[in-house]
Amino acid sequence: MNEIDFIEHLRRKISRSRAVSVGIGDDAAVLAPLRRGRLVVSTDMLVENVDFRIKKDGQRKAPDDFLTPEQIGRKALAVNLSDMAAMGAKPLAFVLTIGKPTYISTKWLDRFYNGMMRFAKEYGVNCIGGDFSRAREFSVSVTILGVAEKPILRSGAKPGDWIGITGKLGGSIRRHHFDFTPRVKEGLLLSRHSLVRSMIDVSDGLFQDLQHILRASGVSAEVDLEAIPVSSDAIVLCHGDTVAALKRALTDGEDFELLLTVSSRQKAVLEPLWKRKFPSVGITWIGRIVKGRPEVQWFSKNKKIRIPNLSCVGYQHF
Amino acid sequence: MNEIDFIEHLRRKISRSRAVSVGIGDDAAVLAPLRRGRLVVSTDMLVENVDFRIKKDGQRKAPDDFLTPEQIGRKALAVNLSDMAAMGAKPLAFVLTIGKPTYISTKWLDRFYNGMMRFAKEYGVNCIGGDFSRAREFSVSVTILGVAEKPILRSGAKPGDWIGITGKLGGSIRRHHFDFTPRVKEGLLLSRHSLVRSMIDVSDGLFQDLQHILRASGVSAEVDLEAIPVSSDAIVLCHGDTVAALKRALTDGEDFELLLTVSSRQKAVLEPLWKRKFPSVGITWIGRIVKGRPEVQWFSKNKKIRIPNLSCVGYQHF
Repeated sequence: MNEIDFIEHLRRKISRSRAVSVGIGDDAAVLAPLRRGRLVVSTDMLVENVDFRIKKDGQRKAPDDFLTPEQIGRKALAVNLSDMAAMGAKPLAFVLTIGKPTYISTKWLDRFYNGMMRFAKEYGVNCIGGDFSRAREFSVSVTILGVAEKPILRSGAKPGDWIGITGKLGGSIRRHHFDFTPRVKEGLLLSRHSLVRSMIDVSDGLFQDLQHILRASGVSAEVDLEAIPVSSDAIVLCHGDTVAALKRALTDGEDFELLLTVSSRQKAVLEPLWKRKFPSVGITWIGRIVKGRPEVQWFSKNKKIRIPNLSCVGYQHF
Repeated sequence: MNEIDFIEHLRRKISRSRAVSVGIGDDAAVLAPLRRGRLVVSTDMLVENVDFRIKKDGQRKAPDDFLTPEQIGRKALAVNLSDMAAMGAKPLAFVLTIGKPTYISTKWLDRFYNGMMRFAKEYGVNCIGGDFSRAREFSVSVTILGVAEKPILRSGAKPGDWIGITGKLGGSIRRHHFDFTPRVKEGLLLSRHSLVRSMIDVSDGLFQDLQHILRASGVSAEVDLEAIPVSSDAIVLCHGDTVAALKRALTDGEDFELLLTVSSRQKAVLEPLWKRKFPSVGITWIGRIVKGRPEVQWFSKNKKIRIPNLSCVGYQHF
């Protein structure tokens, strides 16, 4: 199957929507005019042997970090959807580029697309274009486009804000990193009702991502270590050692939960609304934004404590 | 330099514009609302050892296909600008992902960005986001966003149309493939005045790209082989053998000229306007669109001839 045939094959898989005027097959795609809101754009890249491993022919036993083609396709889109969630944006469409080594078969690639397109359908988002290249290792870059009436930035945190986190943190390497649910619906609710001041998705670990908010907003934070919601996966990975599990919750990447700050007034409106809309996704309040240098002050049992510098523990891209 | 420092370093290099509300540094970028027109989106990927080679430390002599970091940065953006040109779109902004192997230094990457950003400035287009990953080989994917009042598609060709090509074709491997000028201004003129019916940029070779128009439009074409504008690079590469040079003009990829079809009426308006606006860029009329199956009928000295199937000669992505 050559490239033209393969693109034609893909094209048939992909559902069209009113958001797209011209999809795959021309020099570029064309979006329908946005009725309202602003265009939000994000891009993420996944690379073999960095973000996942691919089982090759002849390899007998699959280690835990071998992902199926469907899982890789799903994840490549999911990390981008999570960025839309963090902006409070509704995802519309995406393009992708693929580096394809010779050991990747058309059948493998087809399964990859099935995983991606099935997930795209769930989120009502369309593939509108792409590019392929030969490569020595498999890689996929997705650029996603969404629309937000009022995008939520990292820079909106104000002293007095409550710091909240959805879901639980840590231990994503066990399975969460490929089967997580991007918090798109949650992000949209928060954006539509102006329920948050600042937001980010936790991709590099809470320790790093909270600092991104603090730096962008020029504020400090007081965080209660005991309040951090630690996932059962983190505890299992640490064989029940709660201190080690807490460290994982602070530094493991790829939680893809939403970290947000809200005023007291917003918090009062948000809490009942959230419980009604998302009864199975908790929000935990882990601390407050305060005036000061953009760094986290950690508290344990109401006492300020020093914790080791974990900057180098969180995920580093290179 | 870690990723955060490097992104901060980049951010300072990048000029902001009114088209961009939020640039690099948040979970996603936000565009300012479009005053009019539609959003046009395209993506292209370049991979080391496929699209270019990088000189490594210790390699003494640079073969012709070693590109400098600046040239690679320029080219990664230029191929995407050419897609905007082919749609008659004004480029607004782009995002990029980079796969970075260990042998690529921060200094090399900095030169790559300099080449890219200098070129971006020439075209008034802004980098609004990106992602990095470790990788075994260098790769760069760019997704470009533009705006077009009336995007020009491949599917608009009608029987009776004249087939035109800008510039000259063939031999791009000598230097054109990295120093070409994307025909953005030309594409905008053609789009604004509704001067063309269909258009594509020649990236896979005239032979293949004309077929893309024919298939999308459901028409046939009669092309005069003697009319094909052959570049001097193609002639030099073929040591003066004009038949071999013509074959190159038909099949070499990466010309990045515009291939377009116009009605007789459009042609009459276009010709004087074009000569005034772009005196140094020729348009050559190489044939006509006719009814029939989507394949090219070749003519030489007014006689229909059969030429060998060149489908497999043009550029194949995998």
